[in-house]
Amino acid sequence: MAYLGYRPGDADTAWGAFFDPRMALLPAHVVDALHHGPQADQVLLDLACAADLLDHGYLATETGYGRLRRGGFAVSVLTDMPGVTPQMWDWWFGWHGSDARRYKLWHPRAHASARWADGGGDGQYVGRTSLVEEYLGSAYTKAAIRFVPPEELGLPPHRLGDSVAVCARLGSSELPVDIGWLVHQIRPTADGSEMRSRFWMGGPEVAVRHGNMFANSMIRPVAARQLPDPRDLMVHCAQEMNHLAGFLPALYARFA
Amino acid sequence: MAYLGYRPGDADTAWGAFFDPRMALLPAHVVDALHHGPQADQVLLDLACAADLLDHGYLATETGYGRLRRGGFAVSVLTDMPGVTPQMWDWWFGWHGSDARRYKLWHPRAHASARWADGGGDGQYVGRTSLVEEYLGSAYTKAAIRFVPPEELGLPPHRLGDSVAVCARLGSSELPVDIGWLVHQIRPTADGSEMRSRFWMGGPEVAVRHGNMFANSMIRPVAARQLPDPRDLMVHCAQEMNHLAGFLPALYARFA
Repeated sequence: MAYLGYRPGDADTAWGAFFDPRMALLPAHVVDALHHGPQADQVLLDLACAADLLDHGYLATETGYGRLRRGGFAVSVLTDMPGVTPQMWDWWFGWHGSDARRYKLWHPRAHASARWADGGGDGQYVGRTSLVEEYLGSAYTKAAIRFVPPEELGLPPHRLGDSVAVCARLGSSELPVDIGWLVHQIRPTADGSEMRSRFWMGGPEVAVRHGNMFANSMIRPVAARQLPDPRDLMVHCAQEMNHLAGFLPALYARFA
Repeated sequence: MAYLGYRPGDADTAWGAFFDPRMALLPAHVVDALHHGPQADQVLLDLACAADLLDHGYLATETGYGRLRRGGFAVSVLTDMPGVTPQMWDWWFGWHGSDARRYKLWHPRAHASARWADGGGDGQYVGRTSLVEEYLGSAYTKAAIRFVPPEELGLPPHRLGDSVAVCARLGSSELPVDIGWLVHQIRPTADGSEMRSRFWMGGPEVAVRHGNMFANSMIRPVAARQLPDPRDLMVHCAQEMNHLAGFLPALYARFA
């Protein structure tokens, strides 16, 4: 039975001391985006243009959300991470998924459990599916996060020079239905790195796994009711990335 | 085909250098109003009492929104504009509507196109209809803004002493349906001027153009689903007025 937070004994691991239930306030630019509310779809990145993340500089909406014209919604979050390198995140994605007590370090107020669908342990994450249970806002979700090669989204291989792109298909672990995509692009900055997260959820991104167009058209109206609130997704992502970035360098130094 | 922002060549006008896609943060009093959420209708200005805007001082809700007892909602926004005069706005309303590249200066993240329904050019705006395409939040809208003499809302002629009142009936450019009213009252302050914007949307303000009471009662439930979110309207208005006020004096000095 999955549960939130650490219970007595859960911290009795080599990494247990890193569990910190106190989370920082939301960064000011995330609060600004919450105030602003939904953005025009033309200032949001289209999934088909994910490779624009490789351009220098910033896109029109680095933090924000909005409904897309073809249905569904997009969420963007920028996380500044002094002292963190892209390689640390590459390691983290291969390390955290084999033990719920690691996954909980990331978002102590929302992450309940994690395991690999293949039952395996640490190592590579691309091509594997992480089965997680977590809250998005007040909504408890059981998700299957299938990490895919960035080429599947039109991006170059996930380590490009000094940058890393973590890409995944997002779906349910209880039903054979996918509901979205994510990209976390991590690129170096003068004093560490920054993460540019993008989610595309609902609408045309809903599909029955191994299904056909008819199945998709049947499931979409049902799936639309299961989608997270874009504000909750933006807050969750901003919180977990900022939180882990605070001690990822120390974690990496000890366990990588 | 209307689109957001400037594309290559769009800035090749005498005013093109004024296009700035970076917009300022929302003013603190607008953020307060967003935090507060809906207000009691009795602290919102009734459309029938629009002339109260002529009183000295401020009304009960200069920035905020709320549902009205008779249906629909009201939105208020106060914009402080150092260095700006009411006459500059009077000029702007007659100048911007004949070229989408001017209209886009006003809200670079939401304005897509503008033209006059009469096909004409610059000059007077009262009595004319501006056909615009713009986002309110994530919602793309095609609006017909029919500027009316302030007398139609019980206000004195639009230039009263040093003040200007811009008044309009708001409706669809695709259907013969109106959905609201607006007033932007601009009055001098010690260091420039301030704009007091008021919108009354939905409920009894929905009407079929040249229609009758029966037609109105049929269309109202449909129109109610097309109305913008009052928060999105408040954010949009605050953004565009603050943004333009930043360079309106320079624009006026050059083109008026």
